[in-house]
Amino acid sequence: MTTASSSMWGGRFSEATDAFVAEFTASVNFDKRLYKHDIQGSIAHATMLAKVGVLTTDERDAITQGLTTIQQEIEAGQFEWRIDLEDVHMNIEARLTDRIGIAGKKLHTGRSRNDQVATDIRLYLRDEISRTRQILHRLLVGLLDLAEREASTIMAGFTHLQTAQPVTFGHHLLAWFEMLLRDDERLADCRRRVNRMPLGSAALAGTTYPIDRAYTAELLGFEGICENSLDAVSDRDFAIEFCAAASLTMMHLSRMSEELILWNSQQFKFVDIPDRFCTGSSIMPQKKNPDVPELVRGKSGRVNGHLISLLTLMKGQPLAYNKDNQEDKEPLFDALDTLQASLRAFADMVPALKPNREAMREAALRGFATATDLADYLVKKGTAFRDAHEIVGKAVAYGVQSNQDLSAMSLAELQQFSATIEDDVFQVLSLEGSVNARNHLGGTAPNQVLAAIQRARSRISTE
Amino acid sequence: MTTASSSMWGGRFSEATDAFVAEFTASVNFDKRLYKHDIQGSIAHATMLAKVGVLTTDERDAITQGLTTIQQEIEAGQFEWRIDLEDVHMNIEARLTDRIGIAGKKLHTGRSRNDQVATDIRLYLRDEISRTRQILHRLLVGLLDLAEREASTIMAGFTHLQTAQPVTFGHHLLAWFEMLLRDDERLADCRRRVNRMPLGSAALAGTTYPIDRAYTAELLGFEGICENSLDAVSDRDFAIEFCAAASLTMMHLSRMSEELILWNSQQFKFVDIPDRFCTGSSIMPQKKNPDVPELVRGKSGRVNGHLISLLTLMKGQPLAYNKDNQEDKEPLFDALDTLQASLRAFADMVPALKPNREAMREAALRGFATATDLADYLVKKGTAFRDAHEIVGKAVAYGVQSNQDLSAMSLAELQQFSATIEDDVFQVLSLEGSVNARNHLGGTAPNQVLAAIQRARSRISTE
Amino acid sequence: MTTASSSMWGGRFSEATDAFVAEFTASVNFDKRLYKHDIQGSIAHATMLAKVGVLTTDERDAITQGLTTIQQEIEAGQFEWRIDLEDVHMNIEARLTDRIGIAGKKLHTGRSRNDQVATDIRLYLRDEISRTRQILHRLLVGLLDLAEREASTIMAGFTHLQTAQPVTFGHHLLAWFEMLLRDDERLADCRRRVNRMPLGSAALAGTTYPIDRAYTAELLGFEGICENSLDAVSDRDFAIEFCAAASLTMMHLSRMSEELILWNSQQFKFVDIPDRFCTGSSIMPQKKNPDVPELVRGKSGRVNGHLISLLTLMKGQPLAYNKDNQEDKEPLFDALDTLQASLRAFADMVPALKPNREAMREAALRGFATATDLADYLVKKGTAFRDAHEIVGKAVAYGVQSNQDLSAMSLAELQQFSATIEDDVFQVLSLEGSVNARNHLGGTAPNQVLAAIQRARSRISTE
Amino acid sequence: MTTASSSMWGGRFSEATDAFVAEFTASVNFDKRLYKHDIQGSIAHATMLAKVGVLTTDERDAITQGLTTIQQEIEAGQFEWRIDLEDVHMNIEARLTDRIGIAGKKLHTGRSRNDQVATDIRLYLRDEISRTRQILHRLLVGLLDLAEREASTIMAGFTHLQTAQPVTFGHHLLAWFEMLLRDDERLADCRRRVNRMPLGSAALAGTTYPIDRAYTAELLGFEGICENSLDAVSDRDFAIEFCAAASLTMMHLSRMSEELILWNSQQFKFVDIPDRFCTGSSIMPQKKNPDVPELVRGKSGRVNGHLISLLTLMKGQPLAYNKDNQEDKEPLFDALDTLQASLRAFADMVPALKPNREAMREAALRGFATATDLADYLVKKGTAFRDAHEIVGKAVAYGVQSNQDLSAMSLAELQQFSATIEDDVFQVLSLEGSVNARNHLGGTAPNQVLAAIQRARSRISTE
Repeated sequence: MTTASSSMWGGRFSEATDAFVAEFTASVNFDKRLYKHDIQGSIAHATMLAKVGVLTTDERDAITQGLTTIQQEIEAGQFEWRIDLEDVHMNIEARLTDRIGIAGKKLHTGRSRNDQVATDIRLYLRDEISRTRQILHRLLVGLLDLAEREASTIMAGFTHLQTAQPVTFGHHLLAWFEMLLRDDERLADCRRRVNRMPLGSAALAGTTYPIDRAYTAELLGFEGICENSLDAVSDRDFAIEFCAAASLTMMHLSRMSEELILWNSQQFKFVDIPDRFCTGSSIMPQKKNPDVPELVRGKSGRVNGHLISLLTLMKGQPLAYNKDNQEDKEPLFDALDTLQASLRAFADMVPALKPNREAMREAALRGFATATDLADYLVKKGTAFRDAHEIVGKAVAYGVQSNQDLSAMSLAELQQFSATIEDDVFQVLSLEGSVNARNHLGGTAPNQVLAAIQRARSRISTE
Repeated sequence: MTTASSSMWGGRFSEATDAFVAEFTASVNFDKRLYKHDIQGSIAHATMLAKVGVLTTDERDAITQGLTTIQQEIEAGQFEWRIDLEDVHMNIEARLTDRIGIAGKKLHTGRSRNDQVATDIRLYLRDEISRTRQILHRLLVGLLDLAEREASTIMAGFTHLQTAQPVTFGHHLLAWFEMLLRDDERLADCRRRVNRMPLGSAALAGTTYPIDRAYTAELLGFEGICENSLDAVSDRDFAIEFCAAASLTMMHLSRMSEELILWNSQQFKFVDIPDRFCTGSSIMPQKKNPDVPELVRGKSGRVNGHLISLLTLMKGQPLAYNKDNQEDKEPLFDALDTLQASLRAFADMVPALKPNREAMREAALRGFATATDLADYLVKKGTAFRDAHEIVGKAVAYGVQSNQDLSAMSLAELQQFSATIEDDVFQVLSLEGSVNARNHLGGTAPNQVLAAIQRARSRISTE
Repeated sequence: MTTASSSMWGGRFSEATDAFVAEFTASVNFDKRLYKHDIQGSIAHATMLAKVGVLTTDERDAITQGLTTIQQEIEAGQFEWRIDLEDVHMNIEARLTDRIGIAGKKLHTGRSRNDQVATDIRLYLRDEISRTRQILHRLLVGLLDLAEREASTIMAGFTHLQTAQPVTFGHHLLAWFEMLLRDDERLADCRRRVNRMPLGSAALAGTTYPIDRAYTAELLGFEGICENSLDAVSDRDFAIEFCAAASLTMMHLSRMSEELILWNSQQFKFVDIPDRFCTGSSIMPQKKNPDVPELVRGKSGRVNGHLISLLTLMKGQPLAYNKDNQEDKEPLFDALDTLQASLRAFADMVPALKPNREAMREAALRGFATATDLADYLVKKGTAFRDAHEIVGKAVAYGVQSNQDLSAMSLAELQQFSATIEDDVFQVLSLEGSVNARNHLGGTAPNQVLAAIQRARSRISTE
Repeated sequence: MTTASSSMWGGRFSEATDAFVAEFTASVNFDKRLYKHDIQGSIAHATMLAKVGVLTTDERDAITQGLTTIQQEIEAGQFEWRIDLEDVHMNIEARLTDRIGIAGKKLHTGRSRNDQVATDIRLYLRDEISRTRQILHRLLVGLLDLAEREASTIMAGFTHLQTAQPVTFGHHLLAWFEMLLRDDERLADCRRRVNRMPLGSAALAGTTYPIDRAYTAELLGFEGICENSLDAVSDRDFAIEFCAAASLTMMHLSRMSEELILWNSQQFKFVDIPDRFCTGSSIMPQKKNPDVPELVRGKSGRVNGHLISLLTLMKGQPLAYNKDNQEDKEPLFDALDTLQASLRAFADMVPALKPNREAMREAALRGFATATDLADYLVKKGTAFRDAHEIVGKAVAYGVQSNQDLSAMSLAELQQFSATIEDDVFQVLSLEGSVNARNHLGGTAPNQVLAAIQRARSRISTE
């Protein structure tokens, strides 16, 4: 079999590519996703070539028109992708030459697939990061809206999954917000580094044609130009940095998922997830399973995996481009798809969550949540903190044995442990007293939560 | 929208599944690959249910016939897979009920999707491991055949990529054989643990029907039965253990690939890879690139990634089944595909490799490859090893300066470093003398290599 | 600076090793842990060399005695480890030569550090796997003992962390047992592959001395001999395979930990972890945190990390030994330490767990745990399973609204959903009725649990 | 045994911590490295507490003086670290109370170990990132200096490890520079996110004391304040983001290492690594091994591993602080140590590399490195690029058969393939002609390399 692509580079070859090898090495099945950005890059390249006199304006126009038509064919589902043409680039170029003849053969002047594919991925990833951030922003706003509604809702706060101190549900949601806002920052930083142009690096050393890289970069909206041709064709940092940022985001979503799953259990009952985000069991008729957070939690593994794929992929590769690099795409694409779908699922679900305020409050009344408040009370009455801690510890041990919370004890009972305790202690031991007392930047007091929400709205970057 | 699947569990639900959620949670796009094993398991399950009296024989026959027809539909490409039916199981069951009516609704008696899917994957993986090993065995035989042809071919052996000692090319190929034979052992061990039956565990606790698990296991050729129902539905060890074995194999292939890439360079020229396993460059007309080993080297990252995906997936999951587990399939399937394709590429390529015996020999003549032989020679003449090492080190330093290998020095030059050196040293310093002298089990002497090949042929397991 | 070690190989070098480089490349700080197995290997090597006539019996005895004394020095803390001697091997050999003179210099005849270190690690790992399995066996027995005490204790069984069906606590513990027993199998398989001898491979090609590898292997208790010298010195599969097995075990422990943490929360209260396995808070006096399971859950990440370290390490390395391989030790050692400590923590803690049977039972009464039993009841009365599922789903929806479990409804209420329901339904809806009905191999019925425990005791391998 | 630390939180406990558990859960062995930053944070905290009136100025001064003395004790090696005091924080606080009495007990007012440790790590990591960047900058400057010396040195440029086109060695070194400069950017971005203050979050909800977080942040030089207390104590993004940046840097170093190892082989001989960066073999007297790049290449796996450790660690953790988080330190610390040592090794080694200009040039003359130039020549004479590619491919096939490079063919021989070839072709086929022709931003022409170096010097950030 003579492959079509081998006719594009087969001059020195004495036998055709093995059929299985052709399939094994082809990338068109997954890189065709880049078609739009490949065409965008080619049009800019042709425009630049015409500007510097390598193409005539007629050739440029024929190329531009031909590529535009091909894009329409692809989007109409009328384009036949051929594995024997290896990749998206050769598929499009071969079709272009079919359509417009010799001018099509001139398009590849002054570039190589090595810089072409690097350019395509960067253009694609740049757009997809922006799209990801849009979904993320929708989720961020959803969190702030819900937090605003629940700014005064008291729930048990946990450390070590043990009741720790009362917090407000709004405050808890703002913790989620902070996690995701850092992700947004990282995506913005990553996009900046993605948005640099490798085109013009050709195979590895640059080209002998009098190209104008600044002009091409301007046409394509790149913020900068890759400064070294060898690096430009062998660099895949952008894919790795994106996957690292995506892994962190997915990790955050896994934590939020874990909490939703816990809160949705019969034991917690803090939150009800609407039926439309759940599925049932084929055998247990009573089941309503929190599938969406479970899947998102599971998908965090997937993105970690892609990150490791890419880091392993690049380890120990000598410069410049090696075929190994073709393996960059599937992990990157799946990381993008996974991240966007998971964020979308959360962006849809968060505004629909139904908090169960009673269950949250009830949990805060268990587990001696206000023990720290009692210790602080004692400190304010003059006891050193470490001593107050010891006193309250003993009161708690007594509560465990007598099965009553601190706020349920009588003053006499409390005074067993410290004579300095007086009647004003019960204000301190109340849930409202506890949360209102944490009244500083970052604290759980409802007015601090509301102030934090106001600040947060303006912190969502629109750049 | 009311989804079709929700009609299979929707009794308690007050609203239909959200359309995006339905798509997000559906697995049919990737788990339909299990159709054959799903049907195989269902037929065995129905047969057992009839044996214990839960189904009539008519019902059993209707089910069996219905499922057989469905399998034909699927294989003929006439089956319409529906995302709203979530997964391969519900797609097939719904179609069965369409065809045979109420008996189809009875098939799910005494089982759950939780044990059904675990059974399907194990049946599937069991077969695919066998198929993988067949390809691997073809590669092993190919290595032995090539090693036999090259048992006496002398090449430079390397440590630290520095010329170390002369070895035979056949000996080097046997190192590859050993790496892959360990992989084969691990796959066999893994298959043993895969080949146990979860069916009968139902959702998590077993079932109230009088099932006969031993009978079902016998019908399906399982070697054992999962002893605990909670474990059986939540266990995904088999997928992880397989990916770990696959990661090791891919790592081995990455090392072999690295060597082929090195050997194929203009600097080494040890081996020529036939044109049909290579591709060219779109810009550099002279290029003939070793794409196959490069891709395989790169794909090692992919399988590492899947291993990490699965380990992360299972981390910290409470028992029993959680939706997270649905994420086990894509990494597993891609690990299988990648491993099989990479092994096939090597199994095809290895027999076609063309060794360049002259270049190999020429390399062995550089780099003072027989320096150890000289040290051993001195030891045999009575010098302590550490002192001999020092003496030869000085001779080498002299050789570096005077730009000549040890075997090229005159006797007088050599005697500068030790008076005990005599004329018989030149036999020791010859390449043939060096390799023949390493004449023990595992050594590089050609007769040892031939003996090792004979043993190796019988070590390829056929179980 | 002239390093001491460079005096062992410095003949050809014109300048001494840079001080920072000497430290950067030295391994003695972590490989000194291998001292005992290094000495064990050296004594066997010397014994073999004497058998084949390369050493005299006097030399052999001097070496053996010298090494024995050095081992005592090390164990008494009187040995001075020197970084300038690079590694454990050179430290011990240099000291030996100090003590016994020229015979010490002869010990290294017919071997290299490449095969020596591979031998040392295998000897060490072989022993440590055995030790690990002993701790694991203690944990397995502890689980069986606890399961036996709790064979009839009913608790809520979960899928998707939603109440699914009643199970027995003993049954749940047996799921943990099964997970860990598979780990034990994998460790045994791994040990088999570890227990093969690389010694005799010398640097990469074997040696010119008339060594008797079978004899050395016998002296050291190896089950087999590495068949190829190039492979033997560059193979690190054993470390990776061990880390893969350890990752799986740690993953299992992370799942058990997650459950203990949940069960120990104020929301579940299924289990009390004794105070001696918990710690408190420096600020919240009431806290009793399940530190041990939390740490173990966290440590699962650590072993995954080591597995990836080693897979990345070996990726793409050309044969034979490269310095990279020195990086195999720290991940392996830390994986061993982590696994052993985590297993020990569980082996100590499991027998001390205090189940709270009331809380477990109370949870099983919530969440419509017997809904599947009702569906099965309807099937047995003639309803097709899918229809029964729908009927029960509606009864559950009614229960959610009216806030009552199925078993709390009146017969009339139940009959609203199906006229075939009769008075005998209440037996089916009871917790005892439910668990006893799952009466087959692997099911949760107490008598099945007891039978499984008996089988399990004899399945703990003693090999 | 009553542990000392349990006396700090043991009020509610009825039994002492188990001895093994105490050791298992203690972190002092590795977190004592944070002592300086722990003290720095405590002094700032006490200063703030005095400002807001919680401490008297006498108490503040006693604390400050006490802590300063303790720091001196630690640095003088006179401090006794106690495992029973769990961690660096309790060790220092207990010693403080020993020294200054009750005021020491008051230091912990308004904070918790949860926010304390998060503050300590951030302070520490902030400093270490700066230190890392200093070493990295030294390496960057070293690369530029070497690149400047070698701006006109012609070497073979490779893709797929096949000779591709002539490049200059200086140009190649600038590719390394670009890789590392991106790393520097990422470290700077990461440091920005590290440099925010969690202190004041207390256990999880803030504190009831009237703290002034902005003042503390100012004292400690933080750029911002963590906005949410729940997030602040459970966030470990900074450690993960750092490890991701470190993994990328180590991956780059692994690529540079791979090239140095190749270049240092007898086959390439492009570069000589001075003896002081190499070590020898215990058995092969001629060996001079490139240990430093080999080790660095291997160590890339280690940092990947730590990254995965941390991502796995955080997966699925519910808020807020859990004990799991204690496992963040060892991977982070080792990633820092590994990165700094590897960078230092390269910063020391790069300026000492000795290029072998003849070998580099000789390699460029092999492998038809100027084939692309010939194709470009034909294009400039009017041939379409794809046709020119085909023509040159045939000329190369002829050259492979007749064993001569393009520049060695006669004009007549070349004209066999295209009649448009004329005498001026030989200028194009020369190495100098080839590199000089790639004369645009990012290209390999020596004057472009020199210009790039000038720009590069000013791009090394000093912020």
